[in-house]
Amino acid sequence: MSGSTFGHLFRVTNFGESHGPAIGCVIDGCPPGLALAESDIQPDLDRRRPGTSRHVTQRNEADAVQILSGVCEGLTTGTPIALMIRNEDQRSRDYGNLLDTFRPGHADYAYWRKYGARDPRGGGRASARLTAPMVAAGAVAKKWLLEHHGTRFVGWMCQLGEIEIAFDAESHIAGNPFFAPNAGIVPRLEAYMDELRKSGDSCGARITVTAQGMPVGLGEPLFDKLDAEIAYAMMGINAVKGVEIGSGFGVVTQKGSEHGDELSPQGFRSNHSGGVLGGISTGQDLVVSIAIKPTSSIRLPRASIDRNLAPTIVETHGRHDPCVGIRATPIAEAMLALVVMDHALRHRAQCGDVALPVPPIAAAAPGAPRR
Amino acid sequence: MSGSTFGHLFRVTNFGESHGPAIGCVIDGCPPGLALAESDIQPDLDRRRPGTSRHVTQRNEADAVQILSGVCEGLTTGTPIALMIRNEDQRSRDYGNLLDTFRPGHADYAYWRKYGARDPRGGGRASARLTAPMVAAGAVAKKWLLEHHGTRFVGWMCQLGEIEIAFDAESHIAGNPFFAPNAGIVPRLEAYMDELRKSGDSCGARITVTAQGMPVGLGEPLFDKLDAEIAYAMMGINAVKGVEIGSGFGVVTQKGSEHGDELSPQGFRSNHSGGVLGGISTGQDLVVSIAIKPTSSIRLPRASIDRNLAPTIVETHGRHDPCVGIRATPIAEAMLALVVMDHALRHRAQCGDVALPVPPIAAAAPGAPRR
Amino acid sequence: MSGSTFGHLFRVTNFGESHGPAIGCVIDGCPPGLALAESDIQPDLDRRRPGTSRHVTQRNEADAVQILSGVCEGLTTGTPIALMIRNEDQRSRDYGNLLDTFRPGHADYAYWRKYGARDPRGGGRASARLTAPMVAAGAVAKKWLLEHHGTRFVGWMCQLGEIEIAFDAESHIAGNPFFAPNAGIVPRLEAYMDELRKSGDSCGARITVTAQGMPVGLGEPLFDKLDAEIAYAMMGINAVKGVEIGSGFGVVTQKGSEHGDELSPQGFRSNHSGGVLGGISTGQDLVVSIAIKPTSSIRLPRASIDRNLAPTIVETHGRHDPCVGIRATPIAEAMLALVVMDHALRHRAQCGDVALPVPPIAAAAPGAPRR
Amino acid sequence: MSGSTFGHLFRVTNFGESHGPAIGCVIDGCPPGLALAESDIQPDLDRRRPGTSRHVTQRNEADAVQILSGVCEGLTTGTPIALMIRNEDQRSRDYGNLLDTFRPGHADYAYWRKYGARDPRGGGRASARLTAPMVAAGAVAKKWLLEHHGTRFVGWMCQLGEIEIAFDAESHIAGNPFFAPNAGIVPRLEAYMDELRKSGDSCGARITVTAQGMPVGLGEPLFDKLDAEIAYAMMGINAVKGVEIGSGFGVVTQKGSEHGDELSPQGFRSNHSGGVLGGISTGQDLVVSIAIKPTSSIRLPRASIDRNLAPTIVETHGRHDPCVGIRATPIAEAMLALVVMDHALRHRAQCGDVALPVPPIAAAAPGAPRR
Repeated sequence: MSGSTFGHLFRVTNFGESHGPAIGCVIDGCPPGLALAESDIQPDLDRRRPGTSRHVTQRNEADAVQILSGVCEGLTTGTPIALMIRNEDQRSRDYGNLLDTFRPGHADYAYWRKYGARDPRGGGRASARLTAPMVAAGAVAKKWLLEHHGTRFVGWMCQLGEIEIAFDAESHIAGNPFFAPNAGIVPRLEAYMDELRKSGDSCGARITVTAQGMPVGLGEPLFDKLDAEIAYAMMGINAVKGVEIGSGFGVVTQKGSEHGDELSPQGFRSNHSGGVLGGISTGQDLVVSIAIKPTSSIRLPRASIDRNLAPTIVETHGRHDPCVGIRATPIAEAMLALVVMDHALRHRAQCGDVALPVPPIAAAAPGAPRR
Repeated sequence: MSGSTFGHLFRVTNFGESHGPAIGCVIDGCPPGLALAESDIQPDLDRRRPGTSRHVTQRNEADAVQILSGVCEGLTTGTPIALMIRNEDQRSRDYGNLLDTFRPGHADYAYWRKYGARDPRGGGRASARLTAPMVAAGAVAKKWLLEHHGTRFVGWMCQLGEIEIAFDAESHIAGNPFFAPNAGIVPRLEAYMDELRKSGDSCGARITVTAQGMPVGLGEPLFDKLDAEIAYAMMGINAVKGVEIGSGFGVVTQKGSEHGDELSPQGFRSNHSGGVLGGISTGQDLVVSIAIKPTSSIRLPRASIDRNLAPTIVETHGRHDPCVGIRATPIAEAMLALVVMDHALRHRAQCGDVALPVPPIAAAAPGAPRR
Repeated sequence: MSGSTFGHLFRVTNFGESHGPAIGCVIDGCPPGLALAESDIQPDLDRRRPGTSRHVTQRNEADAVQILSGVCEGLTTGTPIALMIRNEDQRSRDYGNLLDTFRPGHADYAYWRKYGARDPRGGGRASARLTAPMVAAGAVAKKWLLEHHGTRFVGWMCQLGEIEIAFDAESHIAGNPFFAPNAGIVPRLEAYMDELRKSGDSCGARITVTAQGMPVGLGEPLFDKLDAEIAYAMMGINAVKGVEIGSGFGVVTQKGSEHGDELSPQGFRSNHSGGVLGGISTGQDLVVSIAIKPTSSIRLPRASIDRNLAPTIVETHGRHDPCVGIRATPIAEAMLALVVMDHALRHRAQCGDVALPVPPIAAAAPGAPRR
Repeated sequence: MSGSTFGHLFRVTNFGESHGPAIGCVIDGCPPGLALAESDIQPDLDRRRPGTSRHVTQRNEADAVQILSGVCEGLTTGTPIALMIRNEDQRSRDYGNLLDTFRPGHADYAYWRKYGARDPRGGGRASARLTAPMVAAGAVAKKWLLEHHGTRFVGWMCQLGEIEIAFDAESHIAGNPFFAPNAGIVPRLEAYMDELRKSGDSCGARITVTAQGMPVGLGEPLFDKLDAEIAYAMMGINAVKGVEIGSGFGVVTQKGSEHGDELSPQGFRSNHSGGVLGGISTGQDLVVSIAIKPTSSIRLPRASIDRNLAPTIVETHGRHDPCVGIRATPIAEAMLALVVMDHALRHRAQCGDVALPVPPIAAAAPGAPRR
């Protein structure tokens, strides 16, 4: 049972390979009546696309999205929205030397054992290029959620290799290729990356992503808890090896009297929970942190085997991101938006007529410290 | 759309509340021909059940499981296996004072906002008691996987509050109430818990869970990657706030040349990946780590509100685990087994006839360091 | 991938066998706040249960339903509703002679080939007894739909073997064991059945089931059309071999100018469509007709084989319905209600905020001829 | 929850509208290693496409399929297969007069009420044009099933309006535009259609579709029975109002001693069951019959209303099939193939290692009468 569809009610089916004619997705279940055009989607794709700085892969893709269905006279009709992005810069020859060997840390070996063969062209289906359709679908979800619930999705890089990045201001994020919320640290990040590139090695990163202005009540216990599905969405992004909600692994050394966010008529007093309790959104900001491993395609020689299990040495040339975390911020935002969107519809299905006599309390004060 | 069913092909539908007449689950999709009796399931339930040491809740439940269907003459028939556990020790009066207030850090508030009401008896559906049916279902999955693939599931506590627990030997785990793989540290853990109980506070913990003897090729990219579904399963366990696979958040500061596990004809040389690459099992051990937050039901006074949004102070008496992590090990093992079981069937569905001319390579040497 | 769960948002997972300790179901996704007690469910179970006339099986089952979860203080909580019915009258010896042979027309052979074994006790999972939990779940759906949309479900027998039953009045249906909407024909039906029983043979029947007071707009093209899912639900009932919506097979000889139901400001002028166009409810009554085959367990000798493929003769004694159609009416009503309930929630999820400036038009006049 | 995905393990997600830029589908879950090219798919599309005789719509579409993903070096890779068909002949002006009115018998009204708007261009999503991607997906399923199980799918028209078409020989089917298995009756069918076209009216039809060389054991009771999912697939085809398996509605007047197919060491002696017992395939041919209603778009004037509920008269000009049943045979074959394919994978998932010491018995003798 293949797993190329994401979501239950807002369902995104992804297709394509790194070096095939096109990639894309079909969104099924989008509510009707949403104003939608390519121009609503393209900006997020542009934030993710390759070739925008010297710190990322130099593959040249416009990533221009085309809406094939589901929109009539500028409005969604409630029928499937098919989005297509043509692949344009497929230099398959770059990968010729990888046909018979397996990069340490890469999906090559696992794909080969699973399917009995693999698409050697640019990682095939395992390529991070397949996150582009999710960024596109996420843009649709973001638009609906902003219009209907006032929810905004904001992510940033909080660590690059050994360099921790202190949060300064959201306004800094868009001003540098790292999505760093701190303009002052950018020169140091650039120097770090320049040195890394020269060394032929790669590095990891840590990204924080938030949803602000969350509706209360989203999440479906026992299993489809909001945080469980966020973890699923995040861990499914290429190269992610860890996911935290709120205080994350910090809870191990917290006491209950410290961790539990107190409530007051003016709102929550802190947000250690990261906006989810019992698997259900509280109305506080969702706060999610993810760990992204260093790219496995590096120039340095590594021991490996070939398809006959004979030992060999692998060095990967071609065009690769030395830190896939650099382009991960818009991807993580999109995946978070897709989870929230799906749960907004799921909640409406079952609890659409629930009404309480008092309003939800506020989120923690905007000035509250945020990881 | 409620989320009380776990899994796609090996599907477990969970029902019940902490203080209703019974809890249980229905397993749909178990292969026929598996020898199965209550005695295959009860041992894991006994590992999880309350009242077995002074460090956990004193609620007295036998947690005796009854098979209601799906087994004929000692063998599974391929039809749904219904498992039921009667609730016996429901002292609902313990919770009377919680009816109108919300415990900081607890699901009370979120449930109330979502459903318009909540079951105040022992946390209702949000109680960790609902993990018992999953432990029962997990025992069925474990048995099938052991018989068909030789896979074993082993978990342990690796940190209790501030105390890190070094891995000594697997044989120690069953010999103490903490599931600590290190007998020497147990007195220190007991003293820590005794002091914590006296203080009226609670603490967090960290659990590692592994699958050993894994088949290669399990996992369904793009979204139902093996690690993505492990993250979903783990984050869905009560009180979990973080999930790591392999090196987890350690990858942020690793270089690619360090992280990528080299391959050799004798097998992998390390296991930083935690047994998953590209979302597909490599045949190495699955290594998963989770962070469990401190219990929200504590005796210490906390600020909160009531259902009219008026300020109040909450102190929780009654029977609670001061560290829910202590009983979490068998739960995490069960959830991991359910994920692997589901993927074993999913893989067989699509790729059941894939054959390669060479066998899979070995996992990292058994002596290799494991988190 | 086993198929024991019915529905997408209002999900019913069925468990049990004819002669195990219990049968039942878990309903996941019921909206919270519905007043619900066993007494809301039992009446429909009583309409279906065996032993109520000499024309059906004499197995003696009270079919008393117990709610195990999902209801607190008389209201549904939004969490899974587990319903259990104990089996009480299991005379397994009746079936001893069937262990090694296969009844012509029965599921025996197919179950054996699929699962490698079969539960010989009373048909095991293939028994029509497993419709009881669906009738129970259907009663929950009926109650919610009546309260929220004013929808009512009414079914009746329209043919027994060769005897066509003209529709006289709905009020007649409850007054006879056949669910015939025509009191005058009952003596003839009784005589027919008495003769059939004596002969040791069995007969077929035809049932019509309707939903009255339907909301407009239910159904999810392209595949989960309302009529497609009705066909799925109906064909899944034991012994059903044909399903029609509206004019059904009559459309083959209709012209377009006759079939298409004209619209007027006062409402539709006819209902050949059976209440569904393009897979979406029009607001007219749903009208569904099903064909039920004669019972395969008959006393007359039939040629068959045993498990070694050797020829043999099978005669089935024990307790069986000579016409399973007699008890099928409440089952068909329940399945129709479950489909409509599921679609009511699905529609609310995606289109919950669609509003038009003019109201729906009326259904065909109540006096309009109905099959 | 939109329903644009068909199947559980072999999943086909359909997108597009009659007059958008493209239609297509994404097939997720196809086993790897199947040789596949456009030329495997195009022949079935050509059987379905419009404009091939004077008896069907004159819309001019090449329906040329393009594979966008999922195939590498001529073999399926196990990743999603995206298929796209460009729309070429969109004369939207034909439909201008339909914008504000509703054709009796058409989905216009229902779509409008459900989604709050509708795509007026050629029926939008409700157009039978959307069956083309299913025919394409069905061709993939047919190829795999033929190679792995020797299963063939054969359908034909058995009634056109009042004209019943006796089955003469399978070889006749491909020789006429009606898919009639009887060359001798074709002149009569042509005359009937010529007269119908002149009259401005439309007519119904009846199609039989079979699967020959079926594996035993496919189907997932309780709900995802093979016949239940066939009924779902068939009733979901545009204009279908009735579905029968095997003897279908004929069972109402059959006795059990007549209906139940006897077994012998040489095989089944008849096939009243249509190849399914207890929801599981028996290894006999699947035999399915469907009723197709007359087209709702006709030239004759019909009473209707406009979007303000004011009365009006509707006459539909433009290009329409006067009998949509004429092109329905390849569609019904494709849908049947998709159901069987999905169940072949589902069966392998759960029961892939079931083995019995004796082989399945044979289907009814090839010469046996077939509806």
